[in-house]
Amino acid sequence: MAKKKNFLIDMDGVLIKGKTPLHGAPEFIDRLLECGVKFLILTNNPLYTQRDLEHRLKTVGLNVPADHIFTSAIATARFLQSQNPNGKAFVIGESGLTQALHEVGYVQTDINPDYVVLGEVNNYNFELITKAVRLIMDGAMFIATNPDSTGPLEAGIVPATGALAALIEKATGREPFFVGKPNPLMMRSALRYLGVHSEDTIMVGDRMDTDIVAGVMSGLDTILVLSGVSTLADVERFPYRPTQILNSVAEIEIEC
Amino acid sequence: MAKKKNFLIDMDGVLIKGKTPLHGAPEFIDRLLECGVKFLILTNNPLYTQRDLEHRLKTVGLNVPADHIFTSAIATARFLQSQNPNGKAFVIGESGLTQALHEVGYVQTDINPDYVVLGEVNNYNFELITKAVRLIMDGAMFIATNPDSTGPLEAGIVPATGALAALIEKATGREPFFVGKPNPLMMRSALRYLGVHSEDTIMVGDRMDTDIVAGVMSGLDTILVLSGVSTLADVERFPYRPTQILNSVAEIEIEC
Repeated sequence: MAKKKNFLIDMDGVLIKGKTPLHGAPEFIDRLLECGVKFLILTNNPLYTQRDLEHRLKTVGLNVPADHIFTSAIATARFLQSQNPNGKAFVIGESGLTQALHEVGYVQTDINPDYVVLGEVNNYNFELITKAVRLIMDGAMFIATNPDSTGPLEAGIVPATGALAALIEKATGREPFFVGKPNPLMMRSALRYLGVHSEDTIMVGDRMDTDIVAGVMSGLDTILVLSGVSTLADVERFPYRPTQILNSVAEIEIEC
Repeated sequence: MAKKKNFLIDMDGVLIKGKTPLHGAPEFIDRLLECGVKFLILTNNPLYTQRDLEHRLKTVGLNVPADHIFTSAIATARFLQSQNPNGKAFVIGESGLTQALHEVGYVQTDINPDYVVLGEVNNYNFELITKAVRLIMDGAMFIATNPDSTGPLEAGIVPATGALAALIEKATGREPFFVGKPNPLMMRSALRYLGVHSEDTIMVGDRMDTDIVAGVMSGLDTILVLSGVSTLADVERFPYRPTQILNSVAEIEIEC
């Protein structure tokens, strides 16, 4: 893999765990920047804007420029813009999603929207969900940023986008279209944003069931790091293999 | 079926539709009472107490005594009391459910409950759902009053117990146990409450997929009335048949 030069890098379990940087992560990022390697940090978490995430990463010692961060919210906005330019959406989400939709030219409305776009939220209530259900029943298409069913565990488990999507799916009988990992759409969107090709790019992730499968489906080489969710024993249970397995990003060699 | 004397009677689509009594329903109820027939009105809706429902039915011209009404909330409370007498439950529900649990001797608490009991609610929020998810992850068993995924349509569709259960199931990975129809538990609980046997009892309902299947599974004779959801054409799509098909309860003969 020495000749591959570009990286898509998962965030949680690869660079950070909760609010702590993982072994070798700050140095890995610094080396990528120093050597002028093209890379993006990928996250399914649609809560935050690029700038918010830049700040959050900086506070734990990771110097990732805002434009090197790519979220499922950005992938969703770019997907919708490609499908239906300057359309209308009813959005359940935080600023990471609303900002991304705004930037591609979307209008937010609860009157006759083209899409109901569901992202992760810090809060929701019966009224908001009922409105989404009714708009979908009235013909709006149902899009969700990411299928994750639970959120970060720092303060205890919380239901995430995939769980709320299950409620709306049950009430409407309509399946959501999930844009985030493991949908290869997220990877292709990131590659296009970065201006690189899949065959020159390596996906680095800690989960066999999202990062690695998404990389495999998109024709990227893959590195599984064992600093997060998947263990070496887990690897055997999947019908696909990562190209390489490493303990952490500290072991990834970057040639300048 | 002339000799069968007892009736379990579904409410919506059989006796009422929204806030309107269906053809012949008031006279049917009056005749049951006049002839001393044992009967129960069954509803999967756990929102209301027996007394609330008595009042609601009276306002549309149906004179059903409170003790002739049996809800999924009552069935759930009786089931829990039989499984784990005087236990503790964290409840998401309205007075129909909380009252029923109180009456069987249950305590409501969010500290180490035996069960998380989910019923229909007029409102819910992120905090309440997150609490339920965490209690289930901590070992509380997950019970839901009824599997219906949407509520009454009068004022537009709203997500119901089954939809909220789908969210919690997705977040916890634990399936709820649904007590209401079509679970035969609901029918057996009603028969026991009424003090009658299945072979002497007729189930009257408007839905093949809940009322009729529940009756069939519980060994009751069944009457499908075409005044609600299921049509004559629908009947062909199911692997079981009602004992009798009538246009409405007006056609049910009651012998005094």
